Amino acid sequence: MARVQLRRGEEGRLQRGHPWVYRTEIASIHGTYTPGDIVAVEDYRGRFIGRGYINPASMITVRILTNDRDEKIDKVFWRRRLTAAVDYRRRVLAGAGTDAYRVVFGEADFLPGLIVDKFGPYLVVQTLALGIDRFKETLVEILDELLQPEGIYERNDAPVRELEGLELRSGFLKGPFDPQVIIQENGLKFYVDLAAGQKTGYFLDQRENRAALQSLVKGARVLDCFCHTGGFSVHAAHYGAREVLGLDISPEAIAMARRNAVLNGFGNLCSFEEANVFDALREFERRKERFDVVILDPPAFVKARKALEGAIRGYKEINLRAMKLLSPGGFLVTCSCSYHMPEDLFLEVIQSAAMDARRRLRLLARRGQALDHPVLLGYDESRYLKCLLLEII
Amino acid sequence: MARVQLRRGEEGRLQRGHPWVYRTEIASIHGTYTPGDIVAVEDYRGRFIGRGYINPASMITVRILTNDRDEKIDKVFWRRRLTAAVDYRRRVLAGAGTDAYRVVFGEADFLPGLIVDKFGPYLVVQTLALGIDRFKETLVEILDELLQPEGIYERNDAPVRELEGLELRSGFLKGPFDPQVIIQENGLKFYVDLAAGQKTGYFLDQRENRAALQSLVKGARVLDCFCHTGGFSVHAAHYGAREVLGLDISPEAIAMARRNAVLNGFGNLCSFEEANVFDALREFERRKERFDVVILDPPAFVKARKALEGAIRGYKEINLRAMKLLSPGGFLVTCSCSYHMPEDLFLEVIQSAAMDARRRLRLLARRGQALDHPVLLGYDESRYLKCLLLEII
Repeated sequence: MARVQLRRGEEGRLQRGHPWVYRTEIASIHGTYTPGDIVAVEDYRGRFIGRGYINPASMITVRILTNDRDEKIDKVFWRRRLTAAVDYRRRVLAGAGTDAYRVVFGEADFLPGLIVDKFGPYLVVQTLALGIDRFKETLVEILDELLQPEGIYERNDAPVRELEGLELRSGFLKGPFDPQVIIQENGLKFYVDLAAGQKTGYFLDQRENRAALQSLVKGARVLDCFCHTGGFSVHAAHYGAREVLGLDISPEAIAMARRNAVLNGFGNLCSFEEANVFDALREFERRKERFDVVILDPPAFVKARKALEGAIRGYKEINLRAMKLLSPGGFLVTCSCSYHMPEDLFLEVIQSAAMDARRRLRLLARRGQALDHPVLLGYDESRYLKCLLLEII
Repeated sequence: MARVQLRRGEEGRLQRGHPWVYRTEIASIHGTYTPGDIVAVEDYRGRFIGRGYINPASMITVRILTNDRDEKIDKVFWRRRLTAAVDYRRRVLAGAGTDAYRVVFGEADFLPGLIVDKFGPYLVVQTLALGIDRFKETLVEILDELLQPEGIYERNDAPVRELEGLELRSGFLKGPFDPQVIIQENGLKFYVDLAAGQKTGYFLDQRENRAALQSLVKGARVLDCFCHTGGFSVHAAHYGAREVLGLDISPEAIAMARRNAVLNGFGNLCSFEEANVFDALREFERRKERFDVVILDPPAFVKARKALEGAIRGYKEINLRAMKLLSPGGFLVTCSCSYHMPEDLFLEVIQSAAMDARRRLRLLARRGQALDHPVLLGYDESRYLKCLLLEII
């Protein structure tokens, strides 16, 4: 096994449990290897840190699988890791009225690069790094054995794979089956398109935040911005909103949102419009529209740190405009799914928008990802979703 | 009306909505006043900032009631503020299976120094500043009208009143009635002693965190440290724990916790012991006891900033010891109710304990105060409760 030796002083983050070795942190590599192989990682004095897979084509050159010198990376290892991931979800999601959840959350499940989502009786799998891609067959075999899904779909069309030198591909790994499936979430039903939907088809990480609408929307007129396939909208209707309007720029998402409202019996209560949210908010302001609850769940404005300035402007603008549509006592549910936007900064942006809108804010709750997307401490990248519940005074 | 003029540069925090003027920030006071009077606050150039009550005996010399120059402080004002507070709770707590909640959370409800808790059909009132104490009769009259309680109890025995030069007192404002009442929380029942219990009788701010045990305790052996009157313990039993042990140093709290377990039909499942938690955790470690879930809800270790060092040691010790009692896959529910311990620092302390215990942690949720204790942005003091849900790896 080849040995990757770190530069002096680069071992600290890894010792605290971060699983990535960046190319710039490597002093030298001893021995031969093929990209994707398991290698040992050592500090500058040659002391063992961990073992993981190497990809010289990636800035994240090694992804650590284990810090235990005696732990072998074999089929028993993969089964142990996958079993732990499955067991954890079974424990924390029991009785939640939910049959769709993230089974494996990559690094946070000590399975770098692997994403597995369960949608009812089907699985969607992503192998987003070269090292894990090599084990795809073994992993799928074990997942099939552990969860006995009726079908498995591969969504390896995520552009991040290109950074690993991997081709983009998608299709059935066990099947075929109709990729338009119906899932249960918080006791509600949603169509999910496993083949054509965004990411793996549905944003599972917002499940508990959707449930948190229960305290806010009774009798309310609700505006759901960036509504995607209607997750928040349908929950709002279910929890007693008197009227829900969802906006999204994608016609496919809007069509699916409409179907989801009808599926749950809220076809009359919910309406959806294809719209650029920035423009729509401006237009509502001009028309002096008023809502009791506004939900903002935009796509990641910050995909890289250098885009932060522009993202701050974007977040401030939509939040400022949303505040202007809310009467005193109204609620703003505002999200950011960008890892590069830390919660404190996000809150500052919101407060700055409130100053400009001449409103006071009360913070009811700071929420994050659902329980099936745990944050691994020492690996900050796993903590990305912010969802603030605010009251406008 | 007397005018309080600030020193140059001291206006910023107040302009951003913080309601306190510290003695050291005052340049001069123009006009005469009696302690407790309403005064105007101005910046160094004489520009209006707000109006509030003055107490020259307190370090917090003025507490702002309004930043609106045209808003009169009269009975209509108090009714407007109290009505808004009552309405907010009615909106966010509807259908929660709860009849006990904080009706007024002081500064965060724009009623500085006033605490009102509802326990079933009774109210408990605290007027913790001289200015608000003067209006007690009016406030109680309006509360009586708005909420029509069967009785009202005054718990003005909080030592913080001494900083305001106020005497300590408690007793019936409307009554008498039996101060041992039964409340409903998340569909469960609890005895609360309004006259002799800690603070106003029960820690209402943890209500939603108790409900969050639902995902963690099924089939678990649970240790509830600093259990007080058994709030977390009874919830754990209700959500399917197989065995619950509660520890508290107060014999009165333990006796009440036992009654609460019996009241909910969990007399066999829950047991309670009078114990110093630090000693008990050490003893459990020595005996190699194992739990599936440990709850740590200690009293405020940090009442002032200068006590932070000691508090950090205290938090680290109990968290380290708790981790040693948990097997991999076990859950730690760890709280801090000290405003002086910010969440990030608390999380650092927990991570440092994990390093010492040679455990990895996954953060499932960062929780705060229940919805009836909203955080007023711009007034950080209202954000105090941290409750972290962690998995031990």
